[in-house]
Amino acid sequence: MAKFLTSRNENYSQWYNDLVIKADLAENSAVRGCMVIKPYGYSIWEKMQATLDRMFKETGHVNAYFPLFIPKSFMSREAKHVEGFAKECAVITHYRLKNSADGKSVIVDPEAKLEEELIVRPTSETIIWNTYKNWIQSYRDLPILINQWANVVRWEMRTRLFLRTAEFLWQEGHTAHATKEEAIEEAIKMLNVYAEFAEKYLCLPVIKGFKSESEKFAGAIDTYAIEGLMQDGKALQCGTSHFLGQNFAKAFDVKFQNKEGQNEYVWATSWGVSTRLMGALIMAHSDDNGLVLPPNLAPLQVVIIPIFKNTDELINITNVADSILNKLKEKGITAKYDDRQTHKPGFKFADYELKGVPVRLAIGPKDLENGTIEIFRRDTLEKRTIPQQGIENEVVTLLSEIQKNIYNKALKFRDQNIHLVDTYSEFKKVIEKGGFILAHWDGTPETEELIKEETKATIRCIPFDDKYGQGKCMVTGKSSKQRVLFARAY
Amino acid sequence: MAKFLTSRNENYSQWYNDLVIKADLAENSAVRGCMVIKPYGYSIWEKMQATLDRMFKETGHVNAYFPLFIPKSFMSREAKHVEGFAKECAVITHYRLKNSADGKSVIVDPEAKLEEELIVRPTSETIIWNTYKNWIQSYRDLPILINQWANVVRWEMRTRLFLRTAEFLWQEGHTAHATKEEAIEEAIKMLNVYAEFAEKYLCLPVIKGFKSESEKFAGAIDTYAIEGLMQDGKALQCGTSHFLGQNFAKAFDVKFQNKEGQNEYVWATSWGVSTRLMGALIMAHSDDNGLVLPPNLAPLQVVIIPIFKNTDELINITNVADSILNKLKEKGITAKYDDRQTHKPGFKFADYELKGVPVRLAIGPKDLENGTIEIFRRDTLEKRTIPQQGIENEVVTLLSEIQKNIYNKALKFRDQNIHLVDTYSEFKKVIEKGGFILAHWDGTPETEELIKEETKATIRCIPFDDKYGQGKCMVTGKSSKQRVLFARAY
Repeated sequence: MAKFLTSRNENYSQWYNDLVIKADLAENSAVRGCMVIKPYGYSIWEKMQATLDRMFKETGHVNAYFPLFIPKSFMSREAKHVEGFAKECAVITHYRLKNSADGKSVIVDPEAKLEEELIVRPTSETIIWNTYKNWIQSYRDLPILINQWANVVRWEMRTRLFLRTAEFLWQEGHTAHATKEEAIEEAIKMLNVYAEFAEKYLCLPVIKGFKSESEKFAGAIDTYAIEGLMQDGKALQCGTSHFLGQNFAKAFDVKFQNKEGQNEYVWATSWGVSTRLMGALIMAHSDDNGLVLPPNLAPLQVVIIPIFKNTDELINITNVADSILNKLKEKGITAKYDDRQTHKPGFKFADYELKGVPVRLAIGPKDLENGTIEIFRRDTLEKRTIPQQGIENEVVTLLSEIQKNIYNKALKFRDQNIHLVDTYSEFKKVIEKGGFILAHWDGTPETEELIKEETKATIRCIPFDDKYGQGKCMVTGKSSKQRVLFARAY
Repeated sequence: MAKFLTSRNENYSQWYNDLVIKADLAENSAVRGCMVIKPYGYSIWEKMQATLDRMFKETGHVNAYFPLFIPKSFMSREAKHVEGFAKECAVITHYRLKNSADGKSVIVDPEAKLEEELIVRPTSETIIWNTYKNWIQSYRDLPILINQWANVVRWEMRTRLFLRTAEFLWQEGHTAHATKEEAIEEAIKMLNVYAEFAEKYLCLPVIKGFKSESEKFAGAIDTYAIEGLMQDGKALQCGTSHFLGQNFAKAFDVKFQNKEGQNEYVWATSWGVSTRLMGALIMAHSDDNGLVLPPNLAPLQVVIIPIFKNTDELINITNVADSILNKLKEKGITAKYDDRQTHKPGFKFADYELKGVPVRLAIGPKDLENGTIEIFRRDTLEKRTIPQQGIENEVVTLLSEIQKNIYNKALKFRDQNIHLVDTYSEFKKVIEKGGFILAHWDGTPETEELIKEETKATIRCIPFDDKYGQGKCMVTGKSSKQRVLFARAY
């Protein structure tokens, strides 16, 4: 099986690229930095979307849709925001093509120049707050709790499938509130939704915390993030939630009359996760044989494969397989019987391992005689032979066990790779081995920048949950309120 | 209630605009021609999406995602295709903004000019067939049955909410086949899926047929369409499915080895419906009080409203309402109890009528005494008082009855407004009254163009199902194989 993929030890980065391609998840397109998400990859994204969408709705949010384009002038209304996004904006300048003079090609029609250029949204705070201006007059119009599923574009120079692409798919929540406290509560609530999704569905334990000033969202007062650890010891930011204060309300003049009849600027949050989560899913759990998918996100949870020499055997196996398939479906399990005669069982085994299908059932002539079945779990690669009788309950239990095991393995790995470090020289050694480092920092952007330059490590977050208390900055010796989380990151 | 809206008789076009805004479906954005789909409008679109997505999957299709951007040169590979879309393309020419010299605004950075301009997809045949080239080598790789949910942009000069917007949401299916027959079968199958969706969910009877040469999709061999009739007598194209022949395979050099070992160009289809269906839904059924939504697409199917004078009454009503709510939910009905004390029952009644909620239940003190409830149906505006006992079954029956009634009403209206016309002078009179006209046409684009110029009527389709046989063209007297369907259209 390993022939498909470069091994993780050999070259982790190449292993990731191989896996994304070979497992039919995505590929690069003819357009620089833009990916094609292939059907199998997209079906995993659909499971993520459906789960998150349900969680958003359960917390009182509704979906809406805002324009793809943002007038250039909107971008500059919020000073930090434009500073953060100006360098990576796709700009529409014209609205028509025409035939070239020689008739051999099409050219941009110079007469169809826009009065004001439009930006393809890199994020939608500006166009949305310009809209909210007309929706909000009174405290009775608040809160607004809206989410949008959309594509966004950030012109990245170095791109990687799922992890960093010029166009990506995401959801962006944009909420409006009457008070600061309510907005902060909302931003924290949605970070918790993301953390719950990461842990219960992605099987990825995450650390929640504040971003430092230099890492926070362009235009936010505070950015909260969840950070996961990948198998190569690098961190991956899996979701962010922003308390935007009144910054965008001021930029777009969005005021409301409060209960006391006074006009106030509206308080805002925004929060998002993207197809980057596909990268997290792949890098956190997969192995040299291919994907390892948590059952809760696997588009196909169980595959049944017949082992047969002739049509008679196949017919008998198919009878048993069909009956098992029905029992599994009754339990709400997504299952498939693969009786293609164009491919050998060995090929199928390898292919479903590559695709990360959590459970494989194989039935051969001996199993028919004995009333048994071979059951294989993708996460540990273990197989055993069990009775056909009651197989559906066995599978339900196993899927739940796999979901837990993948999470526990990731949790153990993460916990074994959080290092408490007190000196900068030790920091430089430990960071080479990878993993998270909890160390003291004096809180200045200068020290943060120095550490980044010298070690390529960044502050992933200032954890909400601090177990260690105050100390001295490992670089400057100045006082530090709490340890912060460092890592090299994607 | 009529005070919210211009009446249909007074000004149908204004009625539509009023309704879209007042029912909180959508509004114009700050970006010319781009709309904001508001939460209520979007929740109807989500129901449409979920239904169509299920129907596509049941017919063997899978979803994927292709880039938003298309290299300009791709557009010109297929001659008819570029001719059709060049005049309405949003063009990306630069990828960066920078501060202006005076630091007061941001400008497009002239140094960040793209080598080749990118077009925001108006439709994705070109980028997808460029991708399929790498996916298809052999007949074993076929068919490819892919759908994409996406936003597209066509720079329309005259826009209207839902009906014609610069950016709109849609799905586009793109399939690849080994034979011409299989591709045609697929294109027809998907037109039938659209027709079934229109009839069973939108409650809209549609006429299926071929588009004429001049109305077909730019790059298609044949376009099949479903055409619906709106209350003002104008037609609305609700969905199209295209047999693309080998046009895009030739343009992007996509060949496969057939079973006999020979190389052939691949056969293609594409098919799509868009947020335009929201316009069809609104215009086909709604009335001067607001939206009339088919229960199958209504985000909220039943609302329960308490009529009370004091808190004691409210408490007692709430007990009954909660119990009814649970019984409705057990039946799979989406229901809400609106006990807001900030709004009077009369306001709520009008508001839910405006929003098209199919069934309203009202409970007052007398109903408590008598064990009754007032049940109101939105489609006919009829109300009656019935026992609380068994209300859930009554509602199930009523929702099904409303769904049928809305369809039957639209069917009756459509059938009463199909006119058989044999002379051009009669055609000119009848077309002024609106509706569909079935008339003979000589099959030439010249005659078609003349009719369009003189009467503003276009050939909506050449019906698959011809009941009338051959005749003579009403304009030229030349022979005609069958009557074709004319109308003025959106």
